[in-house]
Amino acid sequence: MKIPEIIIIESEHRPGSLAKILTVIGEAGIVIDDLRAIERTPEKTKWELTLQLEKDELEPLTAKVEALPNARILGTSDRVFERHRGGKIRVVSSQRINTLELLRDLYTPGVARVCMAIEEDPDKAWTYTNLRNTVAIVTNGTAILGLGNIGPVAGLPVMEGKAALLEQLVGLSGVPILIDSPDVAVIVETVSRIAPSFGAIKLEDIRAPECFEIERQLIDRLPIPVMHDDQHGTAAVTLAALLTATRRLGIELRQCVVGQIGLGAAGIGIASLLLNYGVAEMLGADLNPEACARLSQRGGQPVEFRDLMRRADIVIATTGVKDLIQPEMVRQGQVILALSNPEPEIEPEVAHAHGARYAADGKAVNNILGFPGIFRGALDANASRITQAMLVAAAEKLSDLAPNDHLVPNPLRLQVHADVAEAVRRASTAG
Amino acid sequence: MKIPEIIIIESEHRPGSLAKILTVIGEAGIVIDDLRAIERTPEKTKWELTLQLEKDELEPLTAKVEALPNARILGTSDRVFERHRGGKIRVVSSQRINTLELLRDLYTPGVARVCMAIEEDPDKAWTYTNLRNTVAIVTNGTAILGLGNIGPVAGLPVMEGKAALLEQLVGLSGVPILIDSPDVAVIVETVSRIAPSFGAIKLEDIRAPECFEIERQLIDRLPIPVMHDDQHGTAAVTLAALLTATRRLGIELRQCVVGQIGLGAAGIGIASLLLNYGVAEMLGADLNPEACARLSQRGGQPVEFRDLMRRADIVIATTGVKDLIQPEMVRQGQVILALSNPEPEIEPEVAHAHGARYAADGKAVNNILGFPGIFRGALDANASRITQAMLVAAAEKLSDLAPNDHLVPNPLRLQVHADVAEAVRRASTAG
Repeated sequence: MKIPEIIIIESEHRPGSLAKILTVIGEAGIVIDDLRAIERTPEKTKWELTLQLEKDELEPLTAKVEALPNARILGTSDRVFERHRGGKIRVVSSQRINTLELLRDLYTPGVARVCMAIEEDPDKAWTYTNLRNTVAIVTNGTAILGLGNIGPVAGLPVMEGKAALLEQLVGLSGVPILIDSPDVAVIVETVSRIAPSFGAIKLEDIRAPECFEIERQLIDRLPIPVMHDDQHGTAAVTLAALLTATRRLGIELRQCVVGQIGLGAAGIGIASLLLNYGVAEMLGADLNPEACARLSQRGGQPVEFRDLMRRADIVIATTGVKDLIQPEMVRQGQVILALSNPEPEIEPEVAHAHGARYAADGKAVNNILGFPGIFRGALDANASRITQAMLVAAAEKLSDLAPNDHLVPNPLRLQVHADVAEAVRRASTAG
Repeated sequence: MKIPEIIIIESEHRPGSLAKILTVIGEAGIVIDDLRAIERTPEKTKWELTLQLEKDELEPLTAKVEALPNARILGTSDRVFERHRGGKIRVVSSQRINTLELLRDLYTPGVARVCMAIEEDPDKAWTYTNLRNTVAIVTNGTAILGLGNIGPVAGLPVMEGKAALLEQLVGLSGVPILIDSPDVAVIVETVSRIAPSFGAIKLEDIRAPECFEIERQLIDRLPIPVMHDDQHGTAAVTLAALLTATRRLGIELRQCVVGQIGLGAAGIGIASLLLNYGVAEMLGADLNPEACARLSQRGGQPVEFRDLMRRADIVIATTGVKDLIQPEMVRQGQVILALSNPEPEIEPEVAHAHGARYAADGKAVNNILGFPGIFRGALDANASRITQAMLVAAAEKLSDLAPNDHLVPNPLRLQVHADVAEAVRRASTAG
């Protein structure tokens, strides 16, 4: 898998020198994610380049760059690691405790009165503790990003990232919970036992098929919202992108035949939400017969991959397989979302060139747009579960807020998340 | 149980009016914790009084106060509840995420590099996540303060209070974990399963005798520090108070016969630490034969209560029973720590009047002085457990830092906790 590497390159400070370096990198088939000048003397400039590299590509690239007359690779940057040093989240006191009076009100003896009030009426925990803002972010580390089963502790930086975003975007307190077991029963039992500590449970980066059963059992057992983000958060954002795309094209999504290629967590989540939204036909393709059976159970129709490409008006791919969709498979007028990151099943420009009416890749469907507003809205509604209607409401709001040149809004705009949360809250109360 | 109630009283603004009110309260046998003026007109003053009241004492007190010519009880204050509104802790991002570059470094795609580095070398989680600062605060709600078995959610305000103090005093991230089960095996299994999420485990307000077995099994199973605060945090602060008292009296604690009355969590913790410190004899009294057996296992000597009072140079009581120690039981020259809150086994002045060389109550031994520095020190040392040597080091440091007129230092002084942490860290490395 390609991962981003930040390298420091020194070039002569004169016209064309950077272009030559970038040309060499481009010719090596390597994409540049980001670039900035970090130091400059009258003669030379130091550049920090973020590249998508396989591990074994750095050495040959270095040789090629240094074959240029006045360029040198000085090494790799620790910027990402430095930004992770000490971790990305912390638990803080909501107020300074610096007087005896505060100590006695917030701790003993004053706290006893609040405890007794909650014992008498447990709903008061929602008012007088942080419970209504607290979301467990649970993983067993079996499907961390595209890295696979690397274990829960190696996945902790992702969980901290989600927690940091929950706070920054919607003011929720995310608590990473790492459980080192692949076993459905262990995860369900453990999460159920600690569930009183949280207002909601976010399941994260748990591999299929275990993720389906874990989520189903926890929803059945617990009185609070439980959501596997890889399924439903992704689905809400994907539906938002499709709503925007079809609106711009003047198509009615509900009249479309949609084909989902890849029926893992994301694929099943997307197909389920589209079925609930009410598309004309929901086709799905996966090499695994169990995954196909799962689609059938949810009301979809498993078909062969090539058959899907022929029949679907809209194709969504979440397979992780680069270039899976051959250009000649693209049907005239098709809408294609090839969502695998960092390398899509078909490049949007290739799809366009072969007749697609509309094509986008995973960069168009940012997962960060979904979970913050969905959890904030569910908690604000005091909802006992997250329904498909709440996910559709999130998707419709995200699509409404998309600027003219994008399928979905900018995830760093805080108002977007507040608006999504409000839409989800209303959809919960309505349901 | 008496709990603090804050009442608002209006009095005429003239000499002697407040004194009359306080006299009435004093004659009703009620202690005043705190008092302040919250509003004043030329004629009248409104006072906020914090009182230690039984539930049924408010009504007769109101009648007595209002029998005074110009005083009125206006009601009870919501100050404690208002200060708890929304909870006392939250999880925050360590840095603002407001640019695409930050998002890409702290979340995908950059985070993948940190995940892979931790997969390769799990120790790196200690550097690049918040793990080394994260302490689970685990309770099943079976012994919350002096309130008893009120359930874990009703205990959450206490757990949030501990978490708030951990952050304010030593910068640790405390995470309340509520498990609704009285069962040893359930607690041990659940905490073991989620232990990879934390740098240390603080057990809290779990009733005896389950607390002993839960702690023992978790220490055996987990590679990180586990400590039941009610036992060992309390013990460290009590030892500190004893070290100060004996030093001032010119006694050598190691040559004393010490008697512990009440062998619950706190009593067993104190007796164990004093045995480890090396007192001449460690006596203990409890009505429960199992509790006495537990003392024997640890090397102490169970005796009858009256026998203990006769033989002990130093008496410590943690029974929760007001006035348990009859004044005539006090031996000439005895040192007495009657620690039950809010009402001690014997009032210090009564003990003094009957021959005690030194006497103090629970206000002298503030639990807040122990756990923050102990956990900070253990985590800074990357210790796999909290040893008795580390607790003794904490106690000695606390005693060193006690100002002339107190047994232990002021818990709101941050430097105290930093010094304790450093002493604990060194004791760990030394061990």
